[in-house]
Amino acid sequence: MGDSSIADGVNCPVPFSRYDRVQLGHGSGGKMSAALLKERFLPHFSNPALAKLTDAAIVEVAAGRLAVSTDTFVVRPLEFPGGNIGSLAVHGTLNDIAMMGARPRYLSAGFVLEEGLEFEVLDRIIAAMARAAEEAGVPIVAGDTKVVERGKADGVFINTTGIGELDRGFAPAPDLARAGDAVIVSGPIGRHGIAVMAVREGLEFEVEIESDAATLSPLVELLREQVGDAVHVLRDPTRGGVASALNEIAESAGVGVELVEDALPIPGPVRAVCEILGFDPLYVANEGILIAMVEGGSEQNAVAALRAHPLGEEATVVGRVVEAHPGLVAMRTGIGGTRVVDMLPGEQLPRIC
Amino acid sequence: MGDSSIADGVNCPVPFSRYDRVQLGHGSGGKMSAALLKERFLPHFSNPALAKLTDAAIVEVAAGRLAVSTDTFVVRPLEFPGGNIGSLAVHGTLNDIAMMGARPRYLSAGFVLEEGLEFEVLDRIIAAMARAAEEAGVPIVAGDTKVVERGKADGVFINTTGIGELDRGFAPAPDLARAGDAVIVSGPIGRHGIAVMAVREGLEFEVEIESDAATLSPLVELLREQVGDAVHVLRDPTRGGVASALNEIAESAGVGVELVEDALPIPGPVRAVCEILGFDPLYVANEGILIAMVEGGSEQNAVAALRAHPLGEEATVVGRVVEAHPGLVAMRTGIGGTRVVDMLPGEQLPRIC
Repeated sequence: MGDSSIADGVNCPVPFSRYDRVQLGHGSGGKMSAALLKERFLPHFSNPALAKLTDAAIVEVAAGRLAVSTDTFVVRPLEFPGGNIGSLAVHGTLNDIAMMGARPRYLSAGFVLEEGLEFEVLDRIIAAMARAAEEAGVPIVAGDTKVVERGKADGVFINTTGIGELDRGFAPAPDLARAGDAVIVSGPIGRHGIAVMAVREGLEFEVEIESDAATLSPLVELLREQVGDAVHVLRDPTRGGVASALNEIAESAGVGVELVEDALPIPGPVRAVCEILGFDPLYVANEGILIAMVEGGSEQNAVAALRAHPLGEEATVVGRVVEAHPGLVAMRTGIGGTRVVDMLPGEQLPRIC
Repeated sequence: MGDSSIADGVNCPVPFSRYDRVQLGHGSGGKMSAALLKERFLPHFSNPALAKLTDAAIVEVAAGRLAVSTDTFVVRPLEFPGGNIGSLAVHGTLNDIAMMGARPRYLSAGFVLEEGLEFEVLDRIIAAMARAAEEAGVPIVAGDTKVVERGKADGVFINTTGIGELDRGFAPAPDLARAGDAVIVSGPIGRHGIAVMAVREGLEFEVEIESDAATLSPLVELLREQVGDAVHVLRDPTRGGVASALNEIAESAGVGVELVEDALPIPGPVRAVCEILGFDPLYVANEGILIAMVEGGSEQNAVAALRAHPLGEEATVVGRVVEAHPGLVAMRTGIGGTRVVDMLPGEQLPRIC
């Protein structure tokens, strides 16, 4: 504790800014809470709605139909190559909104801080969060901060809830997959999970694998413009990976999915780490790619649309929706066989997002 | 552990329902996550938007202006007289929406579960949450569940984010307090904080003090109907209590507040416990009362409106907004003096909501 020379919250009136770690008093709703907010959060998260600091933010929406998504992030460690829990919390929720075909408009952020968390770490998390939100053009309009005793959380947990606007006419949904649809992935598989896992386990490799965490809205906009209604399903394969996402879609739409193993864009380093650790990259979390199921015949346009953006440069067709084996995902393997790609019962990688 | 006879998640395909505690695998995004959702959450939280289990829920709003509020609940213990963390998480966020003069429409819920949490406890929390949401007529349309290892959380933390609709013409706000306004509280002060504290400290009293946690929207509707624009400010005095809420309003509006000590509705048992423990009831959290600042002359109508509802039966005028000492809250004490009611620097009662 670098702050041992500073009296505890109740007796020390000022300056709060001299603390270098989160104290229980920062969660009190009193002066220390106000100082935490004003010194740590507001400088990064400034926008008119949040700045009012009222019980609720007032925002405007044009459309009558909204997409609402919530996600709590508990990733461990808090920082990893390619991002941290703050940027991840923004990308993850914005992507859930985007996968409904909606345009993300507003975010809220709720923090649970563990007493003793270093402000230096918190500052980096908040900065990354603010940057991700700004790049996506989506303000964080409402926030909340709680503090729990040392040992009652794990540094910081962040909930983000997103609100997006839907237009009629573009509404992809998992149950709209149809036999004949092409299955497209927008980029390399497995990077987020392996990047986090490598840091957690202290693994070092010649090539550092970075998380792919990114906001997918620009890809969705391109698909919408170029192929529109031919996009039946959009899905970001996060926790549980590509395999779980495809299984959920197959079940939801009552269709089968047939993957072609050799078509899957799995980066060499991801494949290598998976082999060493005994993971299957199909179950590893991604935070910056999407799966699109697109009407047969439109796949070349869809792939071209995705490739027009840096995030989609490696977009490719990896399989097809079929009438056979409804609810099941099968894969034609490189050696000519077929195997079922089931959902895992429990976890391959806990606390990955 | 009552589930020692059951193999761990990865090897045991079925039945997941035989677990009696949360396992890490329940947070995996795989079959165990799906089972947790279907067996524990959906039976309570059924509504068309949530039932689709898509990445984001699709909801409809009529108005173009929305109130958005987020709050994470970390109250300890999880259950207390008058409620539990689940009902509190609903009431707390709905009240923040209501305090803007908005009508709560939708809620999201994000859970962080600690490995080992008994399902029996979780079930009671979910049931209370569902009941509170149903009574308020606000569906929980989006949800998320994460699991962290034993010792990395404290049973369960719940984030709720609420969306409400605003009409033009009724928009109370903290900075609208004006000299001459009457300060009204809608009910007895200090019950939530003392109820939680008593359980936490294992204190037993002849009269059990119950948390006041409740949804305040009906009171807001009554005020809106009966006194409308004469309502300048609404505020629920939660964390930090009545004192902190009034200080924030005074600062925000650049006005002074003068309280009359003898007018404060502090229940005898709350007063007694506060004296024993050395707490000031003005700083104790409430979860089922509101502070209203109402144009001078309208206070009798406002009090009558509140008293028409069981939650507002003890509504009363407790003070007045003044031009003098802007930013300060003063109290005329029972013995004829005046004291400043400042904000506390740190916490009086940590983890109260």
